[in-house]
Amino acid sequence: MEKPTLPKGTRDFGPAQMAKRQFILNTIRQVFQKYGFQPLETPAMENLTTLTGKYGVEGDQLLFKILNSGDFLKNFKSYLMFPNELSSSRSIFKDIARESKKQNFKTFDICLKSLKITLYKGDEIFEKIDEFYSQNSGVVESVYRNLTEGFISEEEFTDQIDLLFRNFATQYLLKRLTPSELVFNQSISLSEKGLRYDLTVPFARYVVMNRNEVTFPFKRYQIQPVWRADRPQKGRYREFYQCDADVVGTDSLICEAEIVLMIKEVFKGLGIADFSIKINHRGILSGLAELCAAKDQPAGQAGNESSLFVAIDKLDKIGEEKVKEELRSRGFSETSLSTLFEIVNFKGTTQQKIEFLSNKFSTTPTGQKGVSDFKAVLNLLSGYGATEEHVEFDIALARGLSYYTGCIFEVTINNVSIGSVSGGGRYDNLTGVFGLPGVSGVGFSFGVDRLYDAMEELKLFPQEAQISSKVLIAHFDAESQRYGLKVLQTLRANGIASEIYPDSVKIQKQLDYANKKLVPYSIVIGSEEVKSGLLAFKNMKTGEQTKSGIDDILKTLK
Amino acid sequence: MEKPTLPKGTRDFGPAQMAKRQFILNTIRQVFQKYGFQPLETPAMENLTTLTGKYGVEGDQLLFKILNSGDFLKNFKSYLMFPNELSSSRSIFKDIARESKKQNFKTFDICLKSLKITLYKGDEIFEKIDEFYSQNSGVVESVYRNLTEGFISEEEFTDQIDLLFRNFATQYLLKRLTPSELVFNQSISLSEKGLRYDLTVPFARYVVMNRNEVTFPFKRYQIQPVWRADRPQKGRYREFYQCDADVVGTDSLICEAEIVLMIKEVFKGLGIADFSIKINHRGILSGLAELCAAKDQPAGQAGNESSLFVAIDKLDKIGEEKVKEELRSRGFSETSLSTLFEIVNFKGTTQQKIEFLSNKFSTTPTGQKGVSDFKAVLNLLSGYGATEEHVEFDIALARGLSYYTGCIFEVTINNVSIGSVSGGGRYDNLTGVFGLPGVSGVGFSFGVDRLYDAMEELKLFPQEAQISSKVLIAHFDAESQRYGLKVLQTLRANGIASEIYPDSVKIQKQLDYANKKLVPYSIVIGSEEVKSGLLAFKNMKTGEQTKSGIDDILKTLK
Repeated sequence: MEKPTLPKGTRDFGPAQMAKRQFILNTIRQVFQKYGFQPLETPAMENLTTLTGKYGVEGDQLLFKILNSGDFLKNFKSYLMFPNELSSSRSIFKDIARESKKQNFKTFDICLKSLKITLYKGDEIFEKIDEFYSQNSGVVESVYRNLTEGFISEEEFTDQIDLLFRNFATQYLLKRLTPSELVFNQSISLSEKGLRYDLTVPFARYVVMNRNEVTFPFKRYQIQPVWRADRPQKGRYREFYQCDADVVGTDSLICEAEIVLMIKEVFKGLGIADFSIKINHRGILSGLAELCAAKDQPAGQAGNESSLFVAIDKLDKIGEEKVKEELRSRGFSETSLSTLFEIVNFKGTTQQKIEFLSNKFSTTPTGQKGVSDFKAVLNLLSGYGATEEHVEFDIALARGLSYYTGCIFEVTINNVSIGSVSGGGRYDNLTGVFGLPGVSGVGFSFGVDRLYDAMEELKLFPQEAQISSKVLIAHFDAESQRYGLKVLQTLRANGIASEIYPDSVKIQKQLDYANKKLVPYSIVIGSEEVKSGLLAFKNMKTGEQTKSGIDDILKTLK
Repeated sequence: MEKPTLPKGTRDFGPAQMAKRQFILNTIRQVFQKYGFQPLETPAMENLTTLTGKYGVEGDQLLFKILNSGDFLKNFKSYLMFPNELSSSRSIFKDIARESKKQNFKTFDICLKSLKITLYKGDEIFEKIDEFYSQNSGVVESVYRNLTEGFISEEEFTDQIDLLFRNFATQYLLKRLTPSELVFNQSISLSEKGLRYDLTVPFARYVVMNRNEVTFPFKRYQIQPVWRADRPQKGRYREFYQCDADVVGTDSLICEAEIVLMIKEVFKGLGIADFSIKINHRGILSGLAELCAAKDQPAGQAGNESSLFVAIDKLDKIGEEKVKEELRSRGFSETSLSTLFEIVNFKGTTQQKIEFLSNKFSTTPTGQKGVSDFKAVLNLLSGYGATEEHVEFDIALARGLSYYTGCIFEVTINNVSIGSVSGGGRYDNLTGVFGLPGVSGVGFSFGVDRLYDAMEELKLFPQEAQISSKVLIAHFDAESQRYGLKVLQTLRANGIASEIYPDSVKIQKQLDYANKKLVPYSIVIGSEEVKSGLLAFKNMKTGEQTKSGIDDILKTLK
């Protein structure tokens, strides 16, 4: 008998995990809704044309692709059968054989050319006669010589040439079916659909498809699983939830300020106290690049912008010396390096950082824009009456630079072994790739699995998070079970989640069930309880037990 | 520029639909939880070994299969490259050439046999030398003759034989890659994973994999999408949600009674008043079959049980006469038909039906068991103090007979153009297919899309179901916007979902935004309001407007 397993990198969420996950998701959802975001859900499957080319080469490789159903098999079969169509050319081979025997060897070449013309009218493969001949000329000539020397009959000649053609056609087709063609070539594709890789691209697609119905500025949140064919490892799964909130159709920095507020509120709701919201700005990074003479270097060139950013992003992982080494090897001058590290290493309060950068960036408008946007966000926060607590100005934060054009966010929980649990930023051109330019937006995302792991590590989940009945009704016999049904109905009519043990088994087994399910209360009913109406009501945690009427029980439970 | 589209049979759910769907899902979820069911979520992807063979031949064809990522490409590539490995045998061909020239033609055959022995030790393909020779003997002999006659060199001989081998290997491999092998053969499969087809099989898999941790009786609910590669049509989608609740590990009929109670409670919550919970029992159908002499006919035989059930199931669609015709053509006697329709057409109250059937089934224990189970469920319902309202004893209900072994349920909403919106039943052997026999259970499922369509048709969705902010803050200028931030913070601190229009635009545009999003209240702030602290507070529905302090506004909104 087969022993069932789960696909690599996927998980079940049983009742205990579900309770914790729902606690996280509900907390996030409530904050999103409180800030005026509206829910959106998109299908798990998207067209590959929507997904590919949006996540870089690496991302494309991590897409889960769905086999075309029905249609695919038909298409594929027709390719497999295709070589058989060549059999109609047997008569032509025979003609060649007859003709060739009358002439000398050189004419065979001419005959093949005529064959080419004949076949040219058919499918594209027939155009490949030159390729066929250049590959098979040796064998063809051997076969041909045997014909003209009289070693084989016309029929045998035809068989042999036919076989060579079939093999060539097969070979040719198989060559066409390279893995990438199999997957991406529409005409013979195995797959035209893939599983959602993130929530941003489907959101962009939705906005473009519904541009006339959507109310802008459009504030949407989306909480759904995404799939990535990544190598599974600790904390990295092939199916995981993302929780995104984005506003598109406005460049107001109020949106950035509210992202900071929402992050704070979510963490408060989750009970996570020690965390940092790191903020940087694309303009500040561009300003840095300008000062390091990297701005105008074309991509791929020594000392260019992106190699600077890649190196900066590694600062907290590999340290200053290694980053310097890397930058030197990338063609950055010592002057650039000292300018860079004077800025990156500047210590001070946020206000001091802002003043320092304003001076440094006096010659770079992009740099100034970065600083002033950041100042404006802080100013807005104070307008809300919010403090700058948890907010950290991090000049070395350089994530998502291929799409972020304004503020960049990253949130880390301090003192846990988990990377960033949230991040986001402003992008100028979310929907351009789908033909709708000029839609500016800003968004951020929570990683549920990382939040979950962090909260486990910090022991922040309340045990009551378990979703279960509040009361189990246990019973000694058929009569008390029947009495229990009415009690149960009363509890439920008062909105109390409750259940009766369905079978007639020993009381202890019924109470064990309640304990295992973390049901906090039990009511045990026997013939005495049925008579008196006073029920044995037990707190399963404390063990405290009373004889109570149903009204008193309801009072305790409500 | 590409115009984005959605895959056939899939849908986006924008804010308006999401609100309605969440209303349905939350109603169902709350009832499930109130009855002591705990949540479970399983991954979208399951191993094909888990899924295939569970839904019949038709079901297998409707599975969405996921292309193997990475690994698949590697495997496939290795097959494509495999013929190259033959090049190591070039030296052998050369040996053959050298040897052959010394000897006569017949030895070539022997040489090939020796080649076979050499190659036999390698991969299986090398065993196919006989097949190769029988297919290629003509060409091989032509080439060989050219060698022995001195027309071609040893090198040319080697090239030509090598090519023939390569082509054969390619051909052979391609032959192996028939579509069905491509998909189902594990060793070279394109796909080993599929998308969840329903929630029952993943649940069974979960129970088996976690049999030692699960507390039995296990009451789980599961609300997740499933995917079917069905032809899309009105009301039938390729991705849709199911909401299942099952109890496994008990055969107590309390579970059946609670299914009836839960259905009633869900419909009450949804505001659907006119519906029927049709109940039948597998035993009653078996009893019918016995009386119609269909019981002991083997499957496929004239007059057998399943042809009886298939016909009965069509009664409400095609009517009595057509069903009779079908049954006659299936070999049922007139006596059987009159027995059948005497029972099926019996009119009366539920009690009268029970008495009538008890008499009719006096000779069939399975039939009696069906009647007594049904009676017991009704009796339990009265134990809960519940009426039999909405419950309908339907002897012709014959769904899911390949797995249901006890009670069978089906729920229809009256006076709407939609089929059944819920159904379920008891099964004796949920997990047997995964190696865990003897797990009895009973479950049922709601179809969210059908409920949605029915509620739209009945106009049952409250407009307030829209999920949006309760208040929009509009502002005349920068100063009033800044003042608005503080007001906003106060509203949110009091748990009121609210937002500020992020840009500085005309007041009318800001209020239009509120109207489009169905935000029920607005607060308009100008310089006067900033001075006085009395805000223009407007009910967007009635148009009623007051000048109120924030405390009064909070009182209205709470």
